[in-house]
Amino acid sequence: MKLNIRKLDSTATDFLFQLREVLAFEASEDATIDRIAGEILADVKLRGDVAVVEYTNHFDRLNVKSMDELELPMGSLSAVLEVLEPKCRTALEVAAARVRAYHEKQRVECGTHSWKYTESDGTVLGQKLTPIDRVGIYVPGGKAAYPSSVLMNAIPARVAGVKEIVMVVPTPNGVQNPLLLAAAHISGVDRIFTIGGAQAVGALAYGTHTVPGVDKIVGPGNAFVAAAKRRVFGKIGIDMIAGPSEILIICDGSTNPDWVAMDLFSQAEHDELAQSILLSSDATFIEKVQTSLDRQIGDMPRRDVIAASLQGRGALVKVRDMDEACDIANFIAPEHLEISSETPQFWADKIRHAGAIFLGRYTSESLGDYCAGPNHVLPTSRTARFSSPLGVYDFVKRSSIIEVSEQGAQMLGEIAAELAYGEGLQAHAMSAKYRIRKVS
Amino acid sequence: MKLNIRKLDSTATDFLFQLREVLAFEASEDATIDRIAGEILADVKLRGDVAVVEYTNHFDRLNVKSMDELELPMGSLSAVLEVLEPKCRTALEVAAARVRAYHEKQRVECGTHSWKYTESDGTVLGQKLTPIDRVGIYVPGGKAAYPSSVLMNAIPARVAGVKEIVMVVPTPNGVQNPLLLAAAHISGVDRIFTIGGAQAVGALAYGTHTVPGVDKIVGPGNAFVAAAKRRVFGKIGIDMIAGPSEILIICDGSTNPDWVAMDLFSQAEHDELAQSILLSSDATFIEKVQTSLDRQIGDMPRRDVIAASLQGRGALVKVRDMDEACDIANFIAPEHLEISSETPQFWADKIRHAGAIFLGRYTSESLGDYCAGPNHVLPTSRTARFSSPLGVYDFVKRSSIIEVSEQGAQMLGEIAAELAYGEGLQAHAMSAKYRIRKVS
Repeated sequence: MKLNIRKLDSTATDFLFQLREVLAFEASEDATIDRIAGEILADVKLRGDVAVVEYTNHFDRLNVKSMDELELPMGSLSAVLEVLEPKCRTALEVAAARVRAYHEKQRVECGTHSWKYTESDGTVLGQKLTPIDRVGIYVPGGKAAYPSSVLMNAIPARVAGVKEIVMVVPTPNGVQNPLLLAAAHISGVDRIFTIGGAQAVGALAYGTHTVPGVDKIVGPGNAFVAAAKRRVFGKIGIDMIAGPSEILIICDGSTNPDWVAMDLFSQAEHDELAQSILLSSDATFIEKVQTSLDRQIGDMPRRDVIAASLQGRGALVKVRDMDEACDIANFIAPEHLEISSETPQFWADKIRHAGAIFLGRYTSESLGDYCAGPNHVLPTSRTARFSSPLGVYDFVKRSSIIEVSEQGAQMLGEIAAELAYGEGLQAHAMSAKYRIRKVS
Repeated sequence: MKLNIRKLDSTATDFLFQLREVLAFEASEDATIDRIAGEILADVKLRGDVAVVEYTNHFDRLNVKSMDELELPMGSLSAVLEVLEPKCRTALEVAAARVRAYHEKQRVECGTHSWKYTESDGTVLGQKLTPIDRVGIYVPGGKAAYPSSVLMNAIPARVAGVKEIVMVVPTPNGVQNPLLLAAAHISGVDRIFTIGGAQAVGALAYGTHTVPGVDKIVGPGNAFVAAAKRRVFGKIGIDMIAGPSEILIICDGSTNPDWVAMDLFSQAEHDELAQSILLSSDATFIEKVQTSLDRQIGDMPRRDVIAASLQGRGALVKVRDMDEACDIANFIAPEHLEISSETPQFWADKIRHAGAIFLGRYTSESLGDYCAGPNHVLPTSRTARFSSPLGVYDFVKRSSIIEVSEQGAQMLGEIAAELAYGEGLQAHAMSAKYRIRKVS
């Protein structure tokens, strides 16, 4: 099958315009979806469990009487683990252990500790670090049911010290996914409700009689879930609203073209809107990759999705050199960046914006998706310019510590009062001045 | 003047209900404001500078011809500093130096560095830390024109290593505030545009011919600014949407009641919706504070705002003991928490949720607002349950680093392939398997 993928050349006068066109993606902010999500949220806030049960029976085609039937007994989860194929169970456990090890390292390295220091006059300043009390994890139950996502969302929360992790996962037609439940068990989820959609987001955000209200919701979902999360943002915390998944591969032309072609496929197979882009200065190599894509596509079970993705949003880009490739990568700020070259670290040093950087030929992006250790929840749609992979730091928060000594209050009081008067805030000024010793 | 402030007692059977009523605050999500903000954003996105000039002339009652007239020449700022009163200039400079010193410490302590480690098979994992390229700071120019906010928003960005800081500040009727400009100069702002409202948010978010597009916008604003920020969230980063300012004071009864009364005033004077709450187990002390409030209110230039705030949203709460006070504080998760007691650290250890904790009698909250060093941009409306003070960490972001060795790819490839097949993603599996050596 001959794939019709866009080919660009960075020397073209309108290259930047063409590139922008390839990248253009407007998050579907469907007004109808947003309105419906809003109505469901309001209803769940008002009627609690009763509303959640009604929506769940309706959307997931169930017939339960009460919320109790929608909570999974945690005792049943270890049994799920027993029935998994040993090879599968081992893979899940090894992946979980590696994800845990990486995030333990992150906890140590990313300043997730309290600190303070004392100034010469005895004034103490610092920050106190505390895990979030209770976190909700949304897990899609439909066609994008990914056990790996359970690990990637729950383990960092657990490592951060979150006390209670509440997972919601819809079970359309009552069908449970044993791999999802096994992943929940392995990563230490505390409670599981088989609910989904905006009704699950509402239950977690507002709390119901049965579902405990959480302080933050993380995890991907469909358009209704995304709309509901955006609406409860502020009342509780949320992670990013994720766009389609993306890969950008920079290759110096010395990697096996079949490997690179399969890496492009692996991104494209997620869904039709996923984006796979290759940058190389080697025109012959690009030809080889194209030939490989055409040759291998027929063997892919998900070839329709792959073809739609590559032909709709993919691109093979001939660049001047590796330096220009890095510049373009910084402009794109891709979710996943593969640097498939001889000296990958040299080029990685030039990258400022990317969710995750995969260095060297042996680091296929799929290793990062499952088991390398780092999180696979990454900023999409150019948001790597200002945001980070999901991490332990997303499950802790800080309180400033200020303990001004009597001596410190003398000097600071004068300064604060001066500035407070400048802002027209007299009570601020007097509050500071009261702490200043009167000269008798 | 006798202030009619709500008095609560934690032993009342309906105490929690009453407390919730005091805390209740629904962020004004005015549909009209949201719609207008959306229209202005769309127009600025479409027409750029021309639209910004039109809205600015209209809303700020100006009469400029082009965007050029709305950029302040940075060379003029040092002159602003010269005309400030020396005492005022010094106060601003000392405050800036202290804020800078604290945030330098934060940069070091909060893991704002890249890190990596090597596993036994040569696989390298880690995270690369990069400052955000360009940040926009929104500074209100109207009645809440706070030079201290310029310091608190710009200095952490500078310390984080942000390359370019673009400030927007409206100048209604063309009136510039020299203190704001002096603060911008001292904190190292790179460019200043005298624009505000949703049009300024749009210019920063989308970029215009004259205004550079930024990666993140921070800083407080009115309802239109908040609505616009909420709408561009995702396209670019934003800080939190701030609610009314709050203080919670826990006092063991041994602090001068006049000091505590003035601390309550200092919060209340911000605006009518600001919230000041006192918790004490000492009923006599609460009486004394109340008497002090009544006695001092007449001397306050902003007494009308203070009275409206205290009578509408304030409360004096008699609690059982200090332990219960800490529990209530954790429930409220206040923006500012003063622990005015003999052994403040002992009680601070019990606090899990607060934006900033002010320990001991000498630490008036106003010292923290201006010059103690820690940031005064803090989570409001109970969001301290899941978010942190503005800090250096808000101006950096991370990229995961994954460099799998050839040896590592053998083991990881098997696991990734197993899990990928489980998720029905064959290209993911094959991409991993390609890196596995064929046994010949």
